[in-house]
Amino acid sequence: MTKLPTRRSVVLKRRPVGRPEARDFEMLEDATPAPGPGEVVTRTIWLSIDPYMRGRLSSRKSYAPPVQIGEVMTGESVGEVIASGDPAFQPGDVVVGSRGWQTHSLSKADKLVKIDRGGAPLSTYLGVLGMPGTTAYSGMKDIGQPKAGETVVVSAASGAVGSVAGQLGKRAGARAVGVAGGPDKCFFVQDTLGFDACVDHRSIDLKAELAAVCPNGIDVYFENVGGAVQAAVFELLNPFARVVMCGMVSQYNEEEFPPGPNLGFVVGKRVRIQGMIVSDKPERFAEWRALAAPWVADHSLDYREDIVEGLENAPEALAGILGGQNFGKLLVRVGKEMA
Amino acid sequence: MTKLPTRRSVVLKRRPVGRPEARDFEMLEDATPAPGPGEVVTRTIWLSIDPYMRGRLSSRKSYAPPVQIGEVMTGESVGEVIASGDPAFQPGDVVVGSRGWQTHSLSKADKLVKIDRGGAPLSTYLGVLGMPGTTAYSGMKDIGQPKAGETVVVSAASGAVGSVAGQLGKRAGARAVGVAGGPDKCFFVQDTLGFDACVDHRSIDLKAELAAVCPNGIDVYFENVGGAVQAAVFELLNPFARVVMCGMVSQYNEEEFPPGPNLGFVVGKRVRIQGMIVSDKPERFAEWRALAAPWVADHSLDYREDIVEGLENAPEALAGILGGQNFGKLLVRVGKEMA
Repeated sequence: MTKLPTRRSVVLKRRPVGRPEARDFEMLEDATPAPGPGEVVTRTIWLSIDPYMRGRLSSRKSYAPPVQIGEVMTGESVGEVIASGDPAFQPGDVVVGSRGWQTHSLSKADKLVKIDRGGAPLSTYLGVLGMPGTTAYSGMKDIGQPKAGETVVVSAASGAVGSVAGQLGKRAGARAVGVAGGPDKCFFVQDTLGFDACVDHRSIDLKAELAAVCPNGIDVYFENVGGAVQAAVFELLNPFARVVMCGMVSQYNEEEFPPGPNLGFVVGKRVRIQGMIVSDKPERFAEWRALAAPWVADHSLDYREDIVEGLENAPEALAGILGGQNFGKLLVRVGKEMA
Repeated sequence: MTKLPTRRSVVLKRRPVGRPEARDFEMLEDATPAPGPGEVVTRTIWLSIDPYMRGRLSSRKSYAPPVQIGEVMTGESVGEVIASGDPAFQPGDVVVGSRGWQTHSLSKADKLVKIDRGGAPLSTYLGVLGMPGTTAYSGMKDIGQPKAGETVVVSAASGAVGSVAGQLGKRAGARAVGVAGGPDKCFFVQDTLGFDACVDHRSIDLKAELAAVCPNGIDVYFENVGGAVQAAVFELLNPFARVVMCGMVSQYNEEEFPPGPNLGFVVGKRVRIQGMIVSDKPERFAEWRALAAPWVADHSLDYREDIVEGLENAPEALAGILGGQNFGKLLVRVGKEMA
């Protein structure tokens, strides 16, 4: 076996208060361990940066345990197998899986999914075909259930999840309305993604602008942000509306959460507000890849990527996504596609 | 045909601001009209007083149109047919239906359901076997879905809806915990209805008391009141909890609604919060009567009634139920059971 390289890993140094900063993390170097039976070593090509990662930095109780001080930060990545202790994987195979903020990772083989190098761009397995795309699919399939003629509103509409959620609304025959930050994102949401309208959440009167582009009210809300957008959307919900509670990124850096909407309307309007975590239904990942890969190939499902160069910039990238500084699926290029 | 008597009707005089008062209504007298084809005239025996009626007094948009000024106040009642223009009904038949706050009503025959005089007490068709019981059944069947070993919390637990909701939780094998106002109601909820515990919502530290009797958290919340009880319960919800949003009576007299809970927890805990109105699934009424009548007969389903004498006292009864002054299903005795 070839000698394995030294690897770099981004480790949590202290729990951030408010906005995460680069100095909340540190870069460690060590020797990449050799794989034991059933294990695989990969070099990372693409690392995914996603808003949920803020939750892993907090000791607050959540659906997943937090990253401990001194531990490698968690995250999904695409990588190339460079050493394998499992017959199912060979050097040169490309895989996607949860493997942390590292240049090289040692993983259990059964936690990795092999992907076809000749198919969709490798980065899409972290975005439109990966966890974010599956999140949109699962939320719409199980909770949102948009129907022809309905109005679907999606917040963070230019992002990795929102862009897919809205396009799924369109495919179902619904009117899709996005909410995004700033004119460039709004233009992209309408012009490239094909939403019927997009409202800038920085508008002086968000509710009035939203009402103007949702003349028949709102039947499905795919919630990624919370806060003022949530308040504006909730006032426009129709009877029997469904709210897919996927995230509330506007408050992920807060230590104390602001009050929310009075829920009286939920009774009279028979609204369904339901939370979801994509990992609850692991079968949705393969289901979505099979469904959406042809749509990515024929460009009927659009997406945009925002690429940051170098593992050392991952902490700042995470801070940026929490403030909406990214434009499209945020990725860190950790290594070259071809070694 | 015998001459029909003069009737009395409670009519809305002005929209109440805050707590409804007797002077928001007035009593009118007129001649009871004769039934045309497909119509039936009944004399009212029991009139049901329910919290939802507050919504009908407000011009605020709701799922049902408001009662107009000068119109007879709406409500369900049990009555005896005294004149019929429909072959399906004969004088002496007892019926239940939505017929307003009147001593005598003219109704469409197809809006009335005939009930068996020799079966359950007539008043139960307005309570445990009627709209409130069906509300509890429908909410638990479609949204709450309690399972053996889970913990169900019910607010307004001694009331017409809550008392049934909690007993349905027990029948499903769940732990049932009530929230009610004052020691007498709490005692009744535990001792007569058979809940495992009941907490007084007037407690200094409601959340701590609730946590103490829900050591495994809360899986189903049947919401009738909103406000501080809602806030306390929401903090104790387990992953995948279901919240049946049936009512928020604590705010029905308010002109401005207070803020609600921050909904961040809904995502991570995958909570489902869903509103319901019993009339959305009319088939549930007959389903529930068939299911629950034997349980009422064998006393395995308990209930309590709070009876007010005389139609003229209906407005004050409504004001009382909104403040929790009733103890059990609130009814107005408008006429004798046997004429």
